[in-house]
Amino acid sequence: MSKALLLQNVRPWGAEATDMLIRDGRIARIAQGQAADGADTEDGAGAILLPGLVEAHTHLDKSLWGMGWRPHQAGPRLIDKIDTERRLKTQWNIDPHRQSMRQALLSLSHGSTAIRSHVDIDTEIGLAGFEGVAQTRDTLKGQVDIEIVAFPQSGMMSRPGTAELMETALANGAEVVGGLDPCGIDRDPKGQLDAVFALAEKHGKPIDIHLHEPDELGAFSMEMILDRIRAHGMQGQVTISHAFCLGMADRARAHGLMERLAEEKVFIATVATPSRPVPPAAELRERGITLCAGSDGIRDTWGPYGNADMLERAMLLGLRNNFRTDPDVEHALWCCSYGGAEVMGLEGYGLTEGSAADLVLVDAEAVAHAVVAHPPRRLVLKGGAVVARDGQTLTEAP
Amino acid sequence: MSKALLLQNVRPWGAEATDMLIRDGRIARIAQGQAADGADTEDGAGAILLPGLVEAHTHLDKSLWGMGWRPHQAGPRLIDKIDTERRLKTQWNIDPHRQSMRQALLSLSHGSTAIRSHVDIDTEIGLAGFEGVAQTRDTLKGQVDIEIVAFPQSGMMSRPGTAELMETALANGAEVVGGLDPCGIDRDPKGQLDAVFALAEKHGKPIDIHLHEPDELGAFSMEMILDRIRAHGMQGQVTISHAFCLGMADRARAHGLMERLAEEKVFIATVATPSRPVPPAAELRERGITLCAGSDGIRDTWGPYGNADMLERAMLLGLRNNFRTDPDVEHALWCCSYGGAEVMGLEGYGLTEGSAADLVLVDAEAVAHAVVAHPPRRLVLKGGAVVARDGQTLTEAP
Ligand SMILES: [Zn+2]
Ligand SMILES: [Zn+2]
Repeated sequence: MSKALLLQNVRPWGAEATDMLIRDGRIARIAQGQAADGADTEDGAGAILLPGLVEAHTHLDKSLWGMGWRPHQAGPRLIDKIDTERRLKTQWNIDPHRQSMRQALLSLSHGSTAIRSHVDIDTEIGLAGFEGVAQTRDTLKGQVDIEIVAFPQSGMMSRPGTAELMETALANGAEVVGGLDPCGIDRDPKGQLDAVFALAEKHGKPIDIHLHEPDELGAFSMEMILDRIRAHGMQGQVTISHAFCLGMADRARAHGLMERLAEEKVFIATVATPSRPVPPAAELRERGITLCAGSDGIRDTWGPYGNADMLERAMLLGLRNNFRTDPDVEHALWCCSYGGAEVMGLEGYGLTEGSAADLVLVDAEAVAHAVVAHPPRRLVLKGGAVVARDGQTLTEAP
Repeated sequence: MSKALLLQNVRPWGAEATDMLIRDGRIARIAQGQAADGADTEDGAGAILLPGLVEAHTHLDKSLWGMGWRPHQAGPRLIDKIDTERRLKTQWNIDPHRQSMRQALLSLSHGSTAIRSHVDIDTEIGLAGFEGVAQTRDTLKGQVDIEIVAFPQSGMMSRPGTAELMETALANGAEVVGGLDPCGIDRDPKGQLDAVFALAEKHGKPIDIHLHEPDELGAFSMEMILDRIRAHGMQGQVTISHAFCLGMADRARAHGLMERLAEEKVFIATVATPSRPVPPAAELRERGITLCAGSDGIRDTWGPYGNADMLERAMLLGLRNNFRTDPDVEHALWCCSYGGAEVMGLEGYGLTEGSAADLVLVDAEAVAHAVVAHPPRRLVLKGGAVVARDGQTLTEAP
């Protein structure tokens, strides 16, 4: 039981200023003019109070953060990036524990208190990535919640032995079964998807599948996923990441897919990629399909961009979707917070009494202002404890 | 004649560290280990040295910067934004001089030493916008070069009297003739474009036309512009801003347009809008068509985004064009610097001996790193004089 903390003069999701008492890691009371009564106090100075942001799609094992500038090498195709990365992992010693520590703390400095990370598993590195990130997950327990997706980045059917490694990872604590481009990468959609769903069923774990395949190819794979969700009764337990096909030009076709996604309660994860068609956030919202967001790879062998700031991601999501009104811009942030929390199944997420005290304070006039300006975070709390202040985590990165 | 300044330990466009002597507003000598010889010195600490960035498409008269957060009101159509803005200009007292001072100094704090600003001219506000921005241009002379486009935002043919006001602005020092969507807004493409080219010919000034029209409609308007460039011999003097039609799905059609754009030496200005098709930067580069970039409106009645940082704009341009290699990311920055300088016809622009000493220092390991990380600018020089330091201009905004 840590000491109680009174956050004074904060504006929950931009509402009127109030005080928030935090006790035993939870929001105990929200009311203006509370006496400290022996609690520690923090002056919020009228800042916007948000629930801890949620980085719902990233790759903690891949980042080159802190390793010096390394010009991009990979060719234009997806497979070029996959192959280049496998090569450079060893050549550059991209240590998954060190790098995931760096990125997770970078996330935390920007107010993300929960992270879903895909982690490569293949027949070359085996479980080294999983073990490194699992170590980070354990080291940072209590500061940031990390969920690991056992991710067959280099292919599952096309690399015999990968499914067995994934199985070991799942048995040893990976929380989610991953998959990717069952046509484009594995060239055996039935084989891969049957295997992914079998692993999920056997281990009682949810699924998160990278689906870059565009247009009709992506629609085909998506339908195969939808069929299996229905057959396995996995409604509400499957995320499709990227889902570029939902941005296809044939809107009637995309709407048909969205109807089925809504029926099977599928979650969509997006990066709001500016150079590709993306799932339209407003259309998903209309249909009640939860959209979460993530940074994807951050300054890695896949590309040089990214900084793990989910407020900036909300801005990019807003720009990508042509969101301009405050409610729309707030929805972009909803995807980067509540949406991700729903996808990760975070317990007690929110800003009401009784919620977990995972909180971020941002100096801004309104929630939409916080998104477009994304200034350094004034304060980040995890379970009621201060974990970052003025854009810096209290724990130093390796 | 100001005192000489020796910039020590700087890396011009990411090259080896050197010293740069600045005298009489120009780069006098680039060589390592120069003695100060009575010059002032600045320690560059190995920072990247860039030429002053160029904000080649914005609207200094529109920003709400510093006026408090005001939720977006306008409807989804272009005409909704135009009408809403005309109404709010008066209602909110969006003073064009005050607001252009704020935005121009914001730009300068991020290292932009030249700005091309479209300024609204219509039959309601008349020349007030032009006069306010012209006052800012004069006030900030020597700190940032401002070029004014006489811009018929509310229509030219559809608002009799507008062309006469534009004519007065041009006679009184507006540098460029503006236009917009000759079909979509004016519904008289021949009328508007003939009028725009007549004004340009009469006043001997270049042209910059907003062309949001997508697909075949935009292609049609673009061809009408191209015909007139040829007829008036205005090669190298016309910019088409946005040019969304160049992002059309029919790539053969777009390539045909690009061939003609190259022939007539047309410049393209982009914002790298993530929610719209945009002119593909790599295809323009291949054809030798100069692409410049801008922020467009910054936190105005058109939308809440923007911060006038052209290094961040280079990142957005890179993301929008899926640029990943260092040379590609550097090209994105080239558009935000050299490209804009070419479009604005800036004299002596560059990083060679004899160039104007409009310079920016950024702490980064490589040019591409400066783009993706866009940290606060260490130092900004205009004509050899320090105008901003550590992200703050020396001149305070009103
Ligand atoms: Zn990913
Ligand atoms: Zn514009």
